[in-house]
Amino acid sequence: MAHIDLHNELPGLMALLTYRPETAKPLVDLANTLLRGPNSLTRGERELIGAAVSQENDCTFCANSHKAMATQELDDPPLVDKVLKDREEAPPKLRALLNIATQVRISGKSVHPNDIEAAHQAGATDVEIHDTVLIAAAFCMMNRYVDGLGTLAPPDPAGYAAAAKRITENGYGS
Amino acid sequence: MAHIDLHNELPGLMALLTYRPETAKPLVDLANTLLRGPNSLTRGERELIGAAVSQENDCTFCANSHKAMATQELDDPPLVDKVLKDREEAPPKLRALLNIATQVRISGKSVHPNDIEAAHQAGATDVEIHDTVLIAAAFCMMNRYVDGLGTLAPPDPAGYAAAAKRITENGYGS
Repeated sequence: MAHIDLHNELPGLMALLTYRPETAKPLVDLANTLLRGPNSLTRGERELIGAAVSQENDCTFCANSHKAMATQELDDPPLVDKVLKDREEAPPKLRALLNIATQVRISGKSVHPNDIEAAHQAGATDVEIHDTVLIAAAFCMMNRYVDGLGTLAPPDPAGYAAAAKRITENGYGS
Repeated sequence: MAHIDLHNELPGLMALLTYRPETAKPLVDLANTLLRGPNSLTRGERELIGAAVSQENDCTFCANSHKAMATQELDDPPLVDKVLKDREEAPPKLRALLNIATQVRISGKSVHPNDIEAAHQAGATDVEIHDTVLIAAAFCMMNRYVDGLGTLAPPDPAGYAAAAKRITENGYGS
Protein backbone atom coordinates (compact mmCIF):
# COMPACT_ATOMS: atom_id res chain seq x y z
CA MET A 1 0.00 0.00 0.00
CA ALA A 2 1.24 3.50 -0.82
CA HIS A 3 2.22 5.89 2.00
CA ILE A 4 -0.84 8.10 1.31
CA ASP A 5 -4.33 7.28 -0.02
CA LEU A 6 -3.97 7.79 -3.78
CA HIS A 7 -7.63 6.92 -4.49
CA ASN A 8 -6.60 4.42 -7.18
CA GLU A 9 -4.98 0.98 -7.48
CA LEU A 10 -2.61 1.78 -10.36
CA PRO A 11 1.07 0.83 -10.15
CA GLY A 12 4.07 3.15 -9.67
CA LEU A 13 4.16 6.49 -11.44
CA MET A 14 0.74 5.93 -13.04
CA ALA A 15 -0.93 6.11 -9.61
CA LEU A 16 0.79 9.45 -8.91
CA LEU A 17 -0.01 10.98 -12.30
CA THR A 18 -3.67 10.09 -11.80
CA TYR A 19 -3.68 11.42 -8.22
CA ARG A 20 -2.26 14.86 -9.07
CA PRO A 21 -3.05 15.91 -12.68
CA GLU A 22 -1.62 19.42 -12.11
CA THR A 23 1.93 18.10 -11.71
CA ALA A 24 1.35 15.16 -14.09
CA LYS A 25 1.15 17.47 -17.12
CA PRO A 26 4.72 18.91 -16.96
CA LEU A 27 6.15 15.53 -15.88
CA VAL A 28 4.61 13.76 -18.89
CA ASP A 29 5.72 16.59 -21.20
CA LEU A 30 9.27 16.26 -19.85
CA ALA A 31 9.29 12.47 -20.38
CA ASN A 32 7.98 12.77 -23.95
CA THR A 33 10.46 15.54 -24.84
CA LEU A 34 13.51 13.91 -23.26
CA LEU A 35 12.87 10.28 -24.15
CA ARG A 36 10.80 10.47 -27.34
CA GLY A 37 11.46 13.91 -28.92
CA PRO A 38 13.74 14.47 -31.95
CA ASN A 39 17.29 13.53 -30.94
CA SER A 40 20.51 12.09 -32.36
CA LEU A 41 20.37 9.56 -29.50
CA THR A 42 17.87 6.84 -30.40
CA ARG A 43 14.79 6.30 -28.24
CA GLY A 44 16.24 2.91 -27.30
CA GLU A 45 19.54 4.45 -26.14
CA ARG A 46 17.71 7.04 -24.04
CA GLU A 47 15.43 4.42 -22.48
CA LEU A 48 18.43 2.24 -21.68
CA ILE A 49 20.12 5.17 -19.88
CA GLY A 50 16.92 5.64 -17.85
CA ALA A 51 16.68 1.92 -17.07
CA ALA A 52 20.33 1.83 -15.94
CA VAL A 53 19.90 4.81 -13.60
CA SER A 54 16.68 3.32 -12.18
CA GLN A 55 18.46 0.01 -11.61
CA GLU A 56 21.30 1.81 -9.77
CA ASN A 57 18.69 3.66 -7.67
CA ASP A 58 17.04 0.30 -6.91
CA CYS A 59 13.64 1.56 -8.13
CA THR A 60 11.83 -1.64 -9.16
CA PHE A 61 8.89 0.00 -10.96
CA CYS A 62 11.03 2.40 -13.05
CA ALA A 63 13.77 -0.16 -13.77
CA ASN A 64 11.22 -2.72 -15.02
CA SER A 65 9.22 -0.11 -16.98
CA HIS A 66 12.21 1.35 -18.81
CA LYS A 67 13.88 -2.00 -19.36
CA ALA A 68 10.67 -2.99 -21.17
CA MET A 69 10.70 0.33 -23.09
CA ALA A 70 14.37 -0.10 -24.10
CA THR A 71 13.69 -3.68 -25.22
CA GLN A 72 10.76 -2.43 -27.31
CA GLU A 73 12.69 0.49 -28.86
CA LEU A 74 16.28 -0.73 -29.31
CA ASP A 75 17.34 -2.18 -32.70
CA ASP A 76 19.26 -4.87 -30.78
CA PRO A 77 16.91 -5.92 -27.93
CA PRO A 78 19.28 -8.52 -26.35
CA LEU A 79 21.73 -5.65 -25.69
CA VAL A 80 19.39 -4.36 -22.93
CA ASP A 81 19.96 -7.32 -20.61
CA LYS A 82 23.66 -7.43 -21.42
CA VAL A 83 24.21 -3.73 -20.60
CA LEU A 84 22.06 -3.86 -17.46
CA LYS A 85 24.30 -6.71 -16.24
CA ASP A 86 27.59 -5.14 -17.38
CA ARG A 87 27.98 -1.56 -18.70
CA GLU A 88 31.14 -2.65 -20.58
CA GLU A 89 28.88 -4.52 -23.04
CA ALA A 90 27.62 -1.19 -24.46
CA PRO A 91 29.11 0.22 -27.68
CA PRO A 92 31.77 2.93 -26.97
CA LYS A 93 29.63 6.10 -27.22
CA LEU A 94 26.76 4.66 -25.18
CA ARG A 95 29.26 3.26 -22.65
CA ALA A 96 30.77 6.74 -22.14
CA LEU A 97 27.30 8.28 -21.77
CA LEU A 98 26.24 5.58 -19.30
CA ASN A 99 29.34 6.41 -17.24
CA ILE A 100 28.28 10.09 -17.13
CA ALA A 101 24.75 9.01 -16.11
CA THR A 102 26.20 6.88 -13.31
CA GLN A 103 28.20 9.87 -12.01
CA VAL A 104 25.14 12.16 -12.18
CA ARG A 105 23.18 9.59 -10.18
CA ILE A 106 25.75 9.77 -7.38
CA SER A 107 25.90 13.60 -7.46
CA GLY A 108 26.14 16.35 -10.07
CA LYS A 109 29.57 17.17 -8.68
CA SER A 110 30.81 13.62 -9.37
CA VAL A 111 30.95 14.34 -13.11
CA HIS A 112 34.62 14.97 -13.94
CA PRO A 113 35.92 16.78 -17.05
CA ASN A 114 37.61 13.46 -17.95
CA ASP A 115 34.17 11.80 -18.18
CA ILE A 116 33.07 14.51 -20.65
CA GLU A 117 36.32 14.21 -22.61
CA ALA A 118 35.89 10.42 -22.87
CA ALA A 119 32.36 10.91 -24.25
CA HIS A 120 33.61 13.45 -26.82
CA GLN A 121 36.40 11.03 -27.81
CA ALA A 122 33.79 8.29 -28.32
CA GLY A 123 31.87 10.59 -30.69
CA ALA A 124 29.21 12.11 -28.40
CA THR A 125 28.07 15.65 -29.20
CA ASP A 126 27.55 18.39 -26.61
CA VAL A 127 23.77 18.08 -26.96
CA GLU A 128 23.98 14.30 -26.42
CA ILE A 129 26.03 14.89 -23.25
CA HIS A 130 23.54 17.55 -22.10
CA ASP A 131 20.60 15.24 -22.70
CA THR A 132 22.31 12.32 -20.95
CA VAL A 133 22.89 14.46 -17.83
CA LEU A 134 19.26 15.62 -17.85
CA ILE A 135 17.89 12.10 -18.46
CA ALA A 136 19.94 10.74 -15.54
CA ALA A 137 18.86 13.67 -13.33
CA ALA A 138 15.19 13.26 -14.34
CA PHE A 139 15.28 9.56 -13.43
CA CYS A 140 16.77 10.50 -10.04
CA MET A 141 13.59 12.58 -9.61
CA MET A 142 11.15 9.95 -10.91
CA ASN A 143 12.74 7.11 -8.88
CA ARG A 144 12.48 9.17 -5.66
CA TYR A 145 8.91 10.23 -6.48
CA VAL A 146 7.75 6.64 -7.10
CA ASP A 147 9.50 5.08 -4.09
CA GLY A 148 9.20 8.09 -1.75
CA LEU A 149 5.42 7.64 -1.79
CA GLY A 150 5.65 3.86 -1.52
CA THR A 151 3.76 3.07 -4.72
CA LEU A 152 3.17 -0.48 -5.96
CA ALA A 153 5.72 -2.26 -8.20
CA PRO A 154 3.98 -5.33 -9.69
CA PRO A 155 6.30 -8.37 -9.94
CA ASP A 156 4.85 -9.67 -13.25
CA PRO A 157 6.96 -8.56 -16.28
CA ALA A 158 3.94 -8.97 -18.62
CA GLY A 159 2.32 -5.77 -17.32
CA TYR A 160 5.44 -3.73 -18.02
CA ALA A 161 5.71 -5.14 -21.55
CA ALA A 162 2.05 -4.27 -22.25
CA ALA A 163 2.56 -0.71 -20.96
CA ALA A 164 5.74 -0.36 -23.04
CA LYS A 165 3.85 -1.40 -26.18
CA ARG A 166 1.17 1.23 -25.50
CA ILE A 167 3.72 3.99 -24.81
CA THR A 168 5.78 3.07 -27.88
CA GLU A 169 2.66 3.56 -29.98
CA ASN A 170 1.12 6.60 -28.27
CA GLY A 171 3.73 8.26 -26.04
CA TYR A 172 3.93 8.80 -22.28
CA GLY A 173 0.67 9.82 -20.66
CA SER A 174 -1.33 7.50 -22.97
CA MET B 1 33.54 27.10 -17.31
CA ALA B 2 30.75 24.62 -17.93
CA HIS B 3 31.59 21.06 -19.06
CA ILE B 4 30.14 21.75 -22.56
CA ASP B 5 29.94 24.94 -24.65
CA LEU B 6 26.54 26.41 -23.69
CA HIS B 7 26.89 29.42 -26.06
CA ASN B 8 26.01 31.84 -23.24
CA GLU B 9 27.52 33.23 -20.03
CA LEU B 10 24.43 32.90 -17.83
CA PRO B 11 24.68 31.32 -14.38
CA GLY B 12 23.38 27.89 -13.25
CA LEU B 13 20.03 26.66 -14.53
CA MET B 14 19.47 29.79 -16.61
CA ALA B 15 22.37 28.82 -18.91
CA LEU B 16 20.83 25.36 -19.43
CA LEU B 17 17.29 26.62 -20.07
CA THR B 18 18.67 29.00 -22.71
CA TYR B 19 20.83 26.28 -24.29
CA ARG B 20 18.00 23.76 -24.72
CA PRO B 21 14.59 25.43 -25.03
CA GLU B 22 12.88 22.09 -25.87
CA THR B 23 13.53 20.70 -22.38
CA ALA B 24 13.33 24.14 -20.72
CA LYS B 25 9.57 24.38 -21.36
CA PRO B 26 8.43 21.37 -19.25
CA LEU B 27 11.07 22.12 -16.57
CA VAL B 28 9.81 25.71 -16.16
CA ASP B 29 6.18 24.49 -16.19
CA LEU B 30 7.03 21.99 -13.46
CA ALA B 31 8.74 24.66 -11.30
CA ASN B 32 5.83 27.09 -11.66
CA THR B 33 3.22 24.40 -10.89
CA LEU B 34 5.06 22.87 -7.94
CA LEU B 35 6.47 26.00 -6.32
CA ARG B 36 4.01 28.73 -7.32
CA GLY B 37 0.71 27.03 -8.21
CA PRO B 38 -2.36 26.96 -5.91
CA ASN B 39 -1.44 25.03 -2.77
CA SER B 40 -2.17 24.85 0.95
CA LEU B 41 1.60 25.02 1.46
CA THR B 42 2.72 28.64 1.08
CA ARG B 43 5.15 29.59 -1.68
CA GLY B 44 7.66 30.44 1.06
CA GLU B 45 7.35 26.97 2.66
CA ARG B 46 7.80 25.25 -0.71
CA GLU B 47 10.84 27.39 -1.57
CA LEU B 48 12.36 26.63 1.83
CA ILE B 49 11.97 22.87 1.23
CA GLY B 50 13.75 23.33 -2.12
CA ALA B 51 16.52 25.43 -0.54
CA ALA B 52 17.05 22.82 2.21
CA VAL B 53 17.32 19.92 -0.29
CA SER B 54 19.71 21.96 -2.49
CA GLN B 55 21.83 22.74 0.57
CA GLU B 56 21.97 19.03 1.49
CA ASN B 57 22.95 18.22 -2.12
CA ASP B 58 25.69 20.89 -1.88
CA CYS B 59 24.39 22.67 -5.02
CA THR B 60 25.57 26.26 -4.55
CA PHE B 61 23.55 27.83 -7.36
CA CYS B 62 20.22 26.21 -6.39
CA ALA B 63 20.75 26.65 -2.64
CA ASN B 64 21.48 30.37 -3.06
CA SER B 65 18.67 30.88 -5.57
CA HIS B 66 15.98 29.23 -3.47
CA LYS B 67 17.23 30.69 -0.19
CA ALA B 68 16.70 34.09 -1.86
CA MET B 69 13.26 32.98 -3.10
CA ALA B 70 12.22 31.71 0.36
CA THR B 71 13.41 34.96 1.96
CA GLN B 72 11.37 36.92 -0.57
CA GLU B 73 8.21 34.79 -0.16
CA LEU B 74 8.10 33.77 3.51
CA ASP B 75 6.04 35.86 5.95
CA ASP B 76 8.87 35.46 8.48
CA PRO B 77 12.08 35.97 6.41
CA PRO B 78 14.55 35.43 9.32
CA LEU B 79 13.16 31.88 9.63
CA VAL B 80 14.97 30.95 6.40
CA ASP B 81 18.47 31.28 7.85
CA LYS B 82 17.43 29.67 11.12
CA VAL B 83 15.93 26.59 9.41
CA LEU B 84 18.83 26.24 6.97
CA LYS B 85 21.16 26.12 9.99
CA ASP B 86 18.93 23.87 12.14
CA ARG B 87 15.79 22.08 10.88
CA GLU B 88 14.48 21.97 14.48
CA GLU B 89 13.81 25.72 14.23
CA ALA B 90 10.92 25.08 11.79
CA PRO B 91 7.31 25.02 13.05
CA PRO B 92 6.03 21.41 13.62
CA LYS B 93 4.30 20.75 10.26
CA LEU B 94 7.13 22.23 8.20
CA ARG B 95 9.67 20.37 10.33
CA ALA B 96 7.92 17.04 9.62
CA LEU B 97 7.78 17.83 5.89
CA LEU B 98 11.46 18.85 5.85
CA ASN B 99 12.28 15.49 7.42
CA ILE B 100 10.42 13.70 4.62
CA ALA B 101 12.30 15.84 2.06
CA THR B 102 15.62 14.88 3.67
CA GLN B 103 14.73 11.18 3.41
CA VAL B 104 13.67 11.56 -0.24
CA ARG B 105 17.00 13.25 -0.98
CA ILE B 106 18.86 10.20 0.34
CA SER B 107 16.60 7.73 -1.52
CA GLY B 108 12.89 7.24 -2.14
CA LYS B 109 13.15 4.04 -0.12
CA SER B 110 14.44 5.95 2.93
CA VAL B 111 10.95 7.37 3.56
CA HIS B 112 9.47 5.33 6.42
CA PRO B 113 5.76 5.07 7.30
CA ASN B 114 6.70 6.69 10.64
CA ASP B 115 7.87 9.82 8.77
CA ILE B 116 4.46 10.02 7.06
CA GLU B 117 2.64 9.39 10.34
CA ALA B 118 4.62 12.19 12.04
CA ALA B 119 3.65 14.60 9.24
CA HIS B 120 -0.02 13.63 9.55
CA GLN B 121 0.19 14.11 13.33
CA ALA B 122 1.65 17.59 12.77
CA GLY B 123 -1.35 18.47 10.58
CA ALA B 124 -0.02 17.81 7.07
CA THR B 125 -2.54 16.64 4.45
CA ASP B 126 -1.91 13.83 1.96
CA VAL B 127 -1.56 16.36 -0.87
CA GLU B 128 1.00 18.35 1.15
CA ILE B 129 2.98 15.14 1.74
CA HIS B 130 2.72 14.26 -1.96
CA ASP B 131 3.91 17.71 -3.00
CA THR B 132 6.78 17.66 -0.50
CA VAL B 133 8.03 14.34 -1.91
CA LEU B 134 7.80 15.67 -5.47
CA ILE B 135 9.46 19.01 -4.58
CA ALA B 136 12.36 17.17 -2.90
CA ALA B 137 12.64 14.77 -5.86
CA ALA B 138 12.50 17.64 -8.39
CA PHE B 139 15.32 19.45 -6.59
CA CYS B 140 17.36 16.22 -6.70
CA MET B 141 16.94 16.49 -10.50
CA MET B 142 17.68 20.22 -10.78
CA ASN B 143 20.74 20.04 -8.49
CA ARG B 144 22.22 17.20 -10.56
CA TYR B 145 21.41 18.98 -13.85
CA VAL B 146 23.06 22.25 -12.74
CA ASP B 147 26.19 20.66 -11.23
CA GLY B 148 26.43 17.69 -13.62
CA LEU B 149 27.11 20.13 -16.46
CA GLY B 150 29.45 22.25 -14.34
CA THR B 151 27.52 25.52 -14.70
CA LEU B 152 28.59 28.77 -13.00
CA ALA B 153 27.46 29.62 -9.45
CA PRO B 154 28.20 33.35 -8.89
CA PRO B 155 29.43 34.06 -5.33
CA ASP B 156 27.64 37.46 -5.02
CA PRO B 157 24.28 37.15 -3.15
CA ALA B 158 22.99 40.35 -4.82
CA GLY B 159 22.43 38.57 -8.15
CA TYR B 160 20.31 35.86 -6.50
CA ALA B 161 18.21 38.47 -4.68
CA ALA B 162 17.58 40.36 -7.95
CA ALA B 163 16.57 37.14 -9.73
CA ALA B 164 14.26 36.21 -6.80
CA LYS B 165 12.54 39.59 -7.03
CA ARG B 166 11.94 39.09 -10.77
CA ILE B 167 10.64 35.52 -10.31
CA THR B 168 8.38 36.56 -7.40
CA GLU B 169 6.77 39.12 -9.70
CA ASN B 170 6.63 37.18 -12.96
CA GLY B 171 7.19 33.47 -12.24
CA TYR B 172 9.92 31.02 -13.29
CA GLY B 173 11.08 31.40 -16.87
CA SER B 174 10.74 35.21 -16.72
